[in-house]
Amino acid sequence: MTTTIAKGLEGVLFTETKLTFINGSEGILTHLGIPIQEWAEKSTFEELSFALLHGRLPGADELARFDAELRANREVPAELLSVIAAYPKGVHPMQALRTAVSHLSLFDAEAEDTAAEDRYRIGVRMIAQFSTIIAAIARAQDGQEIVAPRADLTHAGNFLYMLKGSEPTAEEARLFDIALILHADHGMNASTFTAIATASTLSDMYSAMTSAIGALKGPLHGGANEAVMDMLDEIGSVENAVPYISEKLDHKEKIMGVGHRVYKFFDPRSRVLRDYAAHVSEKQGKSHYYQILETIEKEIVDRLGSKGIYPNVDFYSGVVYSDLGIKKSFFTPIFALARISGWVASVMEYTANNRLLRPDAVYAGAKDQTYPELSDRQ
Amino acid sequence: MTTTIAKGLEGVLFTETKLTFINGSEGILTHLGIPIQEWAEKSTFEELSFALLHGRLPGADELARFDAELRANREVPAELLSVIAAYPKGVHPMQALRTAVSHLSLFDAEAEDTAAEDRYRIGVRMIAQFSTIIAAIARAQDGQEIVAPRADLTHAGNFLYMLKGSEPTAEEARLFDIALILHADHGMNASTFTAIATASTLSDMYSAMTSAIGALKGPLHGGANEAVMDMLDEIGSVENAVPYISEKLDHKEKIMGVGHRVYKFFDPRSRVLRDYAAHVSEKQGKSHYYQILETIEKEIVDRLGSKGIYPNVDFYSGVVYSDLGIKKSFFTPIFALARISGWVASVMEYTANNRLLRPDAVYAGAKDQTYPELSDRQ
Repeated sequence: MTTTIAKGLEGVLFTETKLTFINGSEGILTHLGIPIQEWAEKSTFEELSFALLHGRLPGADELARFDAELRANREVPAELLSVIAAYPKGVHPMQALRTAVSHLSLFDAEAEDTAAEDRYRIGVRMIAQFSTIIAAIARAQDGQEIVAPRADLTHAGNFLYMLKGSEPTAEEARLFDIALILHADHGMNASTFTAIATASTLSDMYSAMTSAIGALKGPLHGGANEAVMDMLDEIGSVENAVPYISEKLDHKEKIMGVGHRVYKFFDPRSRVLRDYAAHVSEKQGKSHYYQILETIEKEIVDRLGSKGIYPNVDFYSGVVYSDLGIKKSFFTPIFALARISGWVASVMEYTANNRLLRPDAVYAGAKDQTYPELSDRQ
Repeated sequence: MTTTIAKGLEGVLFTETKLTFINGSEGILTHLGIPIQEWAEKSTFEELSFALLHGRLPGADELARFDAELRANREVPAELLSVIAAYPKGVHPMQALRTAVSHLSLFDAEAEDTAAEDRYRIGVRMIAQFSTIIAAIARAQDGQEIVAPRADLTHAGNFLYMLKGSEPTAEEARLFDIALILHADHGMNASTFTAIATASTLSDMYSAMTSAIGALKGPLHGGANEAVMDMLDEIGSVENAVPYISEKLDHKEKIMGVGHRVYKFFDPRSRVLRDYAAHVSEKQGKSHYYQILETIEKEIVDRLGSKGIYPNVDFYSGVVYSDLGIKKSFFTPIFALARISGWVASVMEYTANNRLLRPDAVYAGAKDQTYPELSDRQ
């Protein structure tokens, strides 16, 4: 008898979803059947969050109420802000985020509630509060005073405001909004799966979200756009871009932000970000980073496009964030800021027809042993 | 084409393990091929932890060094104890544990290190520190002063000392040691799986352990022995035990602590705990809880034994903990105190041949939609 092991559970189907569809070979990504390009062009992060949580688009009144709910929930307890301010300097922002989100549960008398409406209520509040927590961690790490949220700004605009202490331009806020839209959900992925696995024990939303943050921080999941920026810093100048990439390709070395497990064509998110980044660059003058990226992209597509290897979303998002004045070490927390909507929606969808997640392992160890006395051992 | 969905991933094999083997129909549980009964009778939690982490038994010198390492690592930063002391009163101890373990990472300059030796170093330290953190949470919640660990006591003895503020008897310490041995690992289960899923992104040990704590706190996983104690309180008296159980059985209602997904015979751990609990009860006079349990057990085995339904380990562990003076709300943290050895060992075993865990979902939602303008919606 041969035993088949599904390594990494790759290709194993464990549930149904109505949220997100991906066709990697054609470069298609949809939420509720609507292409990501349309969401990016016409919608907002707030509306997409509603759509993911409810499985349908909101009416105008519903959207206004949902938006108001997010705005009303931006504050976090002052005690939590004091704790965040006291975190040791220099810690990994994702360790800080995971800790702060876990800590947030201690101030929620209803943290243990796990009925569908409770998961929704807590989930919506956390979507709002993630931005306040992440901005607070960033400010505290820089030794700056924590900025309280403002209810008169959009989700994206308010985050940039809290992060930098000054109101962003409408264009900056919209660019960041689009980045959030593009990262809000991406079907099954390691952090969403970990959130579902935790929630499948009927554990609470804070536990599910801290699990997801813990998984997202792994270098095999989040963090790729940080690596792209490291690469750009290593390249240093536009002149060095082609020689650097050529040498990598000649030695068959991995280039960060290029290729994707799912997409064998342009990642549709990368197209959107690229176009907006180009647009911003044209108006404001091309940034140093953007010029290097542009040069690399041409080289990659020329040499690898025929093999189905294209620049992915991480290739551009880092430069967009950097041009928005966001530090490299906060790229992954910002990924979490967007993805929490997908996490909450996926946990709600799964637990509506819950089944404890528990695959099995094959035992390949010793059998029929007895315990040897300590004195009898070598 | 039919699509097969592996609900709950039940029966799906995703990895090999050499740690733990379970044969549910014969009631067999082994670690490294050695039956759990032998571990309980002859070993210690410290030695079993070494065996799980290294995949082999220690020599006498190795065991002494490992034990010394655990003792030397019991302290946690004073700042963390201050934060724990300030947690709001009445919070769920598992929310507090998850938060404190996550917070612990902020004091570890090497928290991000994920090579095998780093996972081992951090894992061993966390095995030692879990006891200090859990005892501190319990003391703080009761408004009592936190008790510093003592290096001259065993792992089990020191925990009871920190929890109660006075040294346990040798018999109490040994009984608790056995309870830790029995819960140290149990093959694949939801919390171990979640720890592995998080670590499979190459995320750090603190992230993996906070994920595991989050999963363990779910009512479908940990927490069953708390439910057994609730039942015993509801029954109230020995006289009421048989009528209560009979009525439940007549109405085919679930009885807490009875039956197991894997075991269709006596759970071998339940036999060990039962015998020790009986032994302690005989010496100290049978506790009220123990007398009720004894009565229920007879009724269950008479009526359900032929169907493969027997009392499981949770049926006895709660009473053992309760007789040791541990509060019901700390039963699940104590499960974590034991299971961390299995979590760390399983994460190390999996990441030694790591593969990102990422199963897939079937898309069952709408296709080919366009984004309707807000004004066009119903």
